[in-house]
Amino acid sequence: MTLCISLSARPSNLGTRFHNYLYEELGLNFIYKAFAPANLADAIAGVRGLGIRGCAVSMPYKEDVIALIDEMDASAAAIDSVNTIVNDGGHLTAYNTDYSAVQRLLVQHDVSSDFSVIVRGSGGMAKAVAAALHDAEFTRGTIVARNEVAGRALAALYDYGWAPDIGMLTADLIVNVTPVGMAGGAHANDLSFPDTAIKAASLVFDVVASPAETPLIVAARALGRPVITGAEVVALQAEEQFFLYTGIRPTPDQVRCAAAFSRQP
Amino acid sequence: MTLCISLSARPSNLGTRFHNYLYEELGLNFIYKAFAPANLADAIAGVRGLGIRGCAVSMPYKEDVIALIDEMDASAAAIDSVNTIVNDGGHLTAYNTDYSAVQRLLVQHDVSSDFSVIVRGSGGMAKAVAAALHDAEFTRGTIVARNEVAGRALAALYDYGWAPDIGMLTADLIVNVTPVGMAGGAHANDLSFPDTAIKAASLVFDVVASPAETPLIVAARALGRPVITGAEVVALQAEEQFFLYTGIRPTPDQVRCAAAFSRQP
Repeated sequence: MTLCISLSARPSNLGTRFHNYLYEELGLNFIYKAFAPANLADAIAGVRGLGIRGCAVSMPYKEDVIALIDEMDASAAAIDSVNTIVNDGGHLTAYNTDYSAVQRLLVQHDVSSDFSVIVRGSGGMAKAVAAALHDAEFTRGTIVARNEVAGRALAALYDYGWAPDIGMLTADLIVNVTPVGMAGGAHANDLSFPDTAIKAASLVFDVVASPAETPLIVAARALGRPVITGAEVVALQAEEQFFLYTGIRPTPDQVRCAAAFSRQP
Repeated sequence: MTLCISLSARPSNLGTRFHNYLYEELGLNFIYKAFAPANLADAIAGVRGLGIRGCAVSMPYKEDVIALIDEMDASAAAIDSVNTIVNDGGHLTAYNTDYSAVQRLLVQHDVSSDFSVIVRGSGGMAKAVAAALHDAEFTRGTIVARNEVAGRALAALYDYGWAPDIGMLTADLIVNVTPVGMAGGAHANDLSFPDTAIKAASLVFDVVASPAETPLIVAARALGRPVITGAEVVALQAEEQFFLYTGIRPTPDQVRCAAAFSRQP
């Protein structure tokens, strides 16, 4: 039986339920278990020593883990951030499936790289989104972030503009990568973009996955705007991890069911 | 959910089935998985780094692991051999539950330390048996082992005699700790002691667990001799591990069922 794990300071059940559901559905002799490591270096030594096949990496280990692995896939190298490790007979390759998932969603939704883009946020996931946009040749971007240092730094990386507030800014594609609209957060009921920006957009993308129907997504649907939800990002990045670990590409239906199962209380 | 594991060059399903059966029976949020480690030091780092609660240690790691743990319980120190590690918040204590199980069986079967003893064998388990006998104050012992160097060394440790062959030797307690009588081995159908020794014995002890009814045990029962079987050793040492990992002492019935379940094909 093959073991895959996750490493996170605050493990959630999402990945465990998603992967174990598909292992059972596909009759694979795999098991998935979430860990809060006592020590990252020892945990990665354990991945090698125990022959653990795959390892999801979450906060706060996504950058620290780079020194402990053998090879960076382009997806992880693009943003110097790792969320997935694959162990091939002791050789550890690091990936970032958030970055890959955003890139694939831009293709799936047939988003033109001529679109102007506003990315709201300046954290790790905002970096994955901005890098994916940049690498897909979106050149007209603005980072909107209260944190001037982080916002300007992220914008400079990809030759995008920066603004401290959304103000009256509009763009063809607007992307929320802040916690605004996240269940249980301080701003769970707030809109991450004003109505004017939503109305002016051709596509509205919210990275917040819980709930999938954030205030931003609800407002965009009400205004007839196409959307990409955070639930799509989460499912796609998990599917990508699943493929990297097992070599098997589940059907879209199987992924939908696994994602739905993983969100059940 | 708490993980316990085993480390062995050739993992078997026995421990996995025994422990997981009891976890389910007792409603414990534990899971048990067997590993063939790529590297022992990395695997033990993984036990620390991933906060793995318990770790069974099998061939060929029982001695090498000593340098990697923090504390030796008396049971492991008695024979410089480890078969069980308990992780208390990063502090690893090593035990030898084979040694403890033999000691407990001598007490359970009310075996008098006045008994003379023949131990056949000179490997790791023979050492556990000889040490347990010695520490229970059995002073009249003979090690019977073809390997003169190993046999004499083991005998010298506990001030016992040594003989290369059983010949016409007899004793009150005879113990087989060789693979003779083991299913699938070269001597599966052989008696590890001759009839004369069995007839002369007050108690016949076979450490071979598979099958539980070895030719020696079958012959001893036929001659009306009380027996201790290898299945008892295996179940008792596993129960001891279970207690060390979980703090819970299953009932004798639960142990019997778990042991029977673990032996099913």
